Amino acid sequence: METRETDVAIIGAGSAGLNARREVLRQGGEPILIESGPYGTTCARVGCMPSKLLIAAADVAHELSRANAFGLELADGFRVDGRAVMDRVRRERDRFVGFVVESTEAIPSEQWLRGRARFLGPTTLQVDDHTVVESKTVIVAAGSHPFVPPPFNKMREHMMVSDDVFELDDLPGSIAVIGTGIIALELGQAFHRLGVKVAFFNPFDELGPFTDPEVKQVVKAVLSAELTINLGSTVIDAEVVTDGIRLRWADADGGEHEDVFERVLVAAGRRPNLAGLDLEKTGLSLNEKGLPPLNPRTTQASDLPIFFAGDIDGHLPLLHEAADDGRIAGSNAALYPNVVAHIRRVPLAVAFTDPQMAMIGARYADLPEGGFAVGHVSFENQGRARVMGRNQGIGRIYADTSCCRLIGAEIFGPNVEHMAHLLAWSVQQGMSVQAALSMPFYHPVLEEGMRTAIRDLAANLQVLGGCPAEDLVETPGM
Amino acid sequence: METRETDVAIIGAGSAGLNARREVLRQGGEPILIESGPYGTTCARVGCMPSKLLIAAADVAHELSRANAFGLELADGFRVDGRAVMDRVRRERDRFVGFVVESTEAIPSEQWLRGRARFLGPTTLQVDDHTVVESKTVIVAAGSHPFVPPPFNKMREHMMVSDDVFELDDLPGSIAVIGTGIIALELGQAFHRLGVKVAFFNPFDELGPFTDPEVKQVVKAVLSAELTINLGSTVIDAEVVTDGIRLRWADADGGEHEDVFERVLVAAGRRPNLAGLDLEKTGLSLNEKGLPPLNPRTTQASDLPIFFAGDIDGHLPLLHEAADDGRIAGSNAALYPNVVAHIRRVPLAVAFTDPQMAMIGARYADLPEGGFAVGHVSFENQGRARVMGRNQGIGRIYADTSCCRLIGAEIFGPNVEHMAHLLAWSVQQGMSVQAALSMPFYHPVLEEGMRTAIRDLAANLQVLGGCPAEDLVETPGM
Repeated sequence: METRETDVAIIGAGSAGLNARREVLRQGGEPILIESGPYGTTCARVGCMPSKLLIAAADVAHELSRANAFGLELADGFRVDGRAVMDRVRRERDRFVGFVVESTEAIPSEQWLRGRARFLGPTTLQVDDHTVVESKTVIVAAGSHPFVPPPFNKMREHMMVSDDVFELDDLPGSIAVIGTGIIALELGQAFHRLGVKVAFFNPFDELGPFTDPEVKQVVKAVLSAELTINLGSTVIDAEVVTDGIRLRWADADGGEHEDVFERVLVAAGRRPNLAGLDLEKTGLSLNEKGLPPLNPRTTQASDLPIFFAGDIDGHLPLLHEAADDGRIAGSNAALYPNVVAHIRRVPLAVAFTDPQMAMIGARYADLPEGGFAVGHVSFENQGRARVMGRNQGIGRIYADTSCCRLIGAEIFGPNVEHMAHLLAWSVQQGMSVQAALSMPFYHPVLEEGMRTAIRDLAANLQVLGGCPAEDLVETPGM
Repeated sequence: METRETDVAIIGAGSAGLNARREVLRQGGEPILIESGPYGTTCARVGCMPSKLLIAAADVAHELSRANAFGLELADGFRVDGRAVMDRVRRERDRFVGFVVESTEAIPSEQWLRGRARFLGPTTLQVDDHTVVESKTVIVAAGSHPFVPPPFNKMREHMMVSDDVFELDDLPGSIAVIGTGIIALELGQAFHRLGVKVAFFNPFDELGPFTDPEVKQVVKAVLSAELTINLGSTVIDAEVVTDGIRLRWADADGGEHEDVFERVLVAAGRRPNLAGLDLEKTGLSLNEKGLPPLNPRTTQASDLPIFFAGDIDGHLPLLHEAADDGRIAGSNAALYPNVVAHIRRVPLAVAFTDPQMAMIGARYADLPEGGFAVGHVSFENQGRARVMGRNQGIGRIYADTSCCRLIGAEIFGPNVEHMAHLLAWSVQQGMSVQAALSMPFYHPVLEEGMRTAIRDLAANLQVLGGCPAEDLVETPGM
């Protein structure tokens, strides 16, 4: 057993760990990265990038299917070449992963350890059975894995998690998607639009990330019109048969059904990779999820020289959050005990479904009762959305009644990833409703739909005795 | 001859005039609207809306043409049904116009005069030969018309201006586009993608609205690869022949060419509708373009009770500017002589070509020498652009070296209409480069390309001895 000493031991060479390492170096510390799996981040290998590649193909397929409405005729329809679809997904994915692997491999070998790390004490780690690392501080950036509930956890054949999807050589004929969260909807809708028979199952009445009842209602109506979604359904049994998996389920009213699916995609959320870390050896008190108390502004665990970064913290499993976590953890680990609280960016989450989903700032469910106003827009008659033939969806924007500042939004509509940025930036700056209305809006743009909601918000704030709804600031004199 | 007295006479019931009227009423004044043409705005009838409808069809056609790259096969290609394309354009256009006409017709008849207005004195107008209007103030919102240079101004058959395009029953086989500005490129590229043979002609070496040499270079390379663009060409002769118009032109090197086009689309800019207004009767001193001195923050002409709003002011012929002009003119005309200077929104112009073009805030050509830094991004390897197979373009963002604030940008890239809003809002707020980098950027999004340019800007400002390039604001303590 070798012993190594270092300033900062980083468990995990994903997005959080790599950013942490860079920051440790920038602060003049010595890092050691410990990784047991393949190089390349969750985002590049099995997350954001390959899913967006699959969705890009589905988007084009969707354009083909609605071309007729614009006066374009496909003489003989179109055929989805499943192998070609998956080939582009993998080829481009491998290109993105290649960049990450390349930069990872460029890290000097003395900053590397291959193997599984586990805690022997607060700042002592053992890596496989070959090395003990004595470090001044430790960053835990071990990532997350897809959660597989029963009965699927006993089943490997024909069962996939999101990580497996991108290894398919061809598109299956049918997929049962277990879950109706963001990943389930993104992948399931893409498969559906690429001609795969898809059915969604969720024992709960939940669809996507929304908490605003009015948004939830529109989401359900729009997605149910396109997709087969079994909410409130209970999977009774799943059995491997010759041509796939036979699923038996009870619907919301208790009626029993069964069908055979070539594949089952379990997308029931992700869980932190805590197993095998022996966190209890650190002396940290752990909650029922196995996590210690974490301060998101420092990433520090309790008052120990241990920092958590990325998906492992059980917070938002999003690349940009993981990167920020990594930078904060790296900086604080290197400067320990001079731990500094960082300002976090305003929460922003986007689902690349169609229509897209976006959560910005404060969620409806978290708004202080009586202290907020809501602005509303329907995208059904929004000009530009109608021009593009994509006029579906709803936006709800929230402001606090005391200062008339934008505080959050839940939006379901065409390409809302973009206005989600505009809103997130505005929320982060504490922009008032009136200031937002004094900003430029081009014409005809989807952002005008957002303005409709902000104007509605201004009117509602006025009714509540709040802010004047001026949309152009005036100055006296000439 | 009848005589009418009123507070505010408004010449023109387009976007500017209608907004002006609403504002006059809001300020308690009495307006009279004078209109000689059809109801409905330039934007709805012949501008923004129908052009975006044509482009929407072209966008779908473009998706069909590149479907194969995503693994989708069109067994037998696709056919553009020109009549169906133009039918959707007109049907949806008529719907938008219908809303405008409806709200215009709802205006009480005592606030209306039909006919052509001309000045008899500063605040006296004659409308056709039936009415004299004595008004306290006048708003001139008479709009603009497409400019037709020789030899096309003698030619009506087969010659179109942008206003005529949307009346086509079917797509022509070929179009010569005279001009390479925004409208020329938007319409010409759309026709090209819908299978029309299109050739562009411009005696100058200008393509789109850009002033930054690096952007201009990329625009030329990208658009010339798709489209037939004759820059520096001189049209020698245009002759009506049986099957269209025979065009003879000299190329940039003096070589002569000729070709027959079914139609010629003249898109050589728009000119204010000044003819017949008899502006000289107001006593205003007029420049060579026939316009008086105008203050954009008040819309007032010199120190007279006359205000100019919308395209007529020869400034930016854009809907959102016309609407703002109208509101400012309406407010100031109603409150005259208490004229107030208003804060104008940051300039924002978008061309709905593909890739799109956007001009935000200060143009490169207007930047103070030695007082600015530039941040650069190429969209060729931008992650999301590559995922969508739309990785073309360039972005250049400008900041002033003294305060490190964002002041402008010229961008050519995929869907940049959205990041143009983000940048315009940031410029209007005087956001610093460092503050922009502390804002949320999701992943993978096109806005990350914008961030690349802002990071480059931060680095260049540092080199220039300017601002520190922190991307997370830190606060001391916990």
